Amino acid sequence: MTAKLYDFPLSGNCYKVRLFAALAGIALELIPVDLRAGEHKQAPLIGLNPWGQVPVLVDGEVVLRDSQAILVYLASRQADEGWLPRDPAGLGTVMQWLSTAANEVQNGPGAARLVRKFGYDLDHEDALRRAARLLGLIDAHLARHDWLALGRPTIADCAVFPYVALAPEGGVALEDFPHIGRWMERIRALPGFVPMPGL
Amino acid sequence: MTAKLYDFPLSGNCYKVRLFAALAGIALELIPVDLRAGEHKQAPLIGLNPWGQVPVLVDGEVVLRDSQAILVYLASRQADEGWLPRDPAGLGTVMQWLSTAANEVQNGPGAARLVRKFGYDLDHEDALRRAARLLGLIDAHLARHDWLALGRPTIADCAVFPYVALAPEGGVALEDFPHIGRWMERIRALPGFVPMPGL
Repeated sequence: MTAKLYDFPLSGNCYKVRLFAALAGIALELIPVDLRAGEHKQAPLIGLNPWGQVPVLVDGEVVLRDSQAILVYLASRQADEGWLPRDPAGLGTVMQWLSTAANEVQNGPGAARLVRKFGYDLDHEDALRRAARLLGLIDAHLARHDWLALGRPTIADCAVFPYVALAPEGGVALEDFPHIGRWMERIRALPGFVPMPGL
Repeated sequence: MTAKLYDFPLSGNCYKVRLFAALAGIALELIPVDLRAGEHKQAPLIGLNPWGQVPVLVDGEVVLRDSQAILVYLASRQADEGWLPRDPAGLGTVMQWLSTAANEVQNGPGAARLVRKFGYDLDHEDALRRAARLLGLIDAHLARHDWLALGRPTIADCAVFPYVALAPEGGVALEDFPHIGRWMERIRALPGFVPMPGL
């Protein structure tokens, strides 16, 4: 049975899941959610995810909110451990970047884009400060590594890429971060890569 | 060999790891870091964690930043899957709450405490708004569940508990969230539970 992804095309969090599914060859049934009509705040979606957010994954009895959790679930179903290792050190190493995606990426470039593109009432200056610090740290990391974790593409890259690549939509320039630029090119060159609107 | 935890007693993020280690019977060598002297921003610590934060775990060749990643690493080394299951659905279910800990808990009650207790220049009103929304969602969840995930204590509880329990230090009252109150009592009653200053 194909898992259902409650999806919004312009959501970078939904795109994390679509991107990983495309790269890993996982079929998903996409169910569009009309965020502008508030469909995510009403039944039946609010019952599936009381947080009132997309994406939501429904796979038989399994219902998951949070894009990072969905990546972990889908990757750990794969026999191939390439995208998510099972050994403690590998799992912990990838996990570091899932926390970064959930916090610093979301509240930095992610929040800046919510203000500029969707008119959210958030502190744009604060988001820009967080984005600058974050992008500097990621760029320094990628000066020494081709991928965020373990020397190969993992779900860490899928979780961090979307809102970093979309940063210009939030008024965050990426020109000063050449290593991030080359990493994004490597991601775009992966077999199966799919873009999203704005990339 | 005992893993080393670079630690600060008043950090809720460090406490997540100390709490889990105590509950799971894992020995850690605690290495105090003098945050007030900026030791986390200097060599050798900045080399171990370029993000300039504690906790940092060093276990032989393994070096991990981020409290959630450290919890995942330590729990997945255990033969007992009680604290962190290996099956995809269980792993994804716990993972949802690790993202919540990294983002909403950190930027809600965590940030409010940084302002009130440590004088950080952050938006206290914003932190209070985030805390109110978060605590409402957690309380509603705990009205139907004894534990955050899987009907038993997991690292999800260890990741979320510290900054929720410390919320009053940030000016966030917990009286309106009775289910959170009873969940905190259940955590405090777990064999091996250790407190931290402020609890």
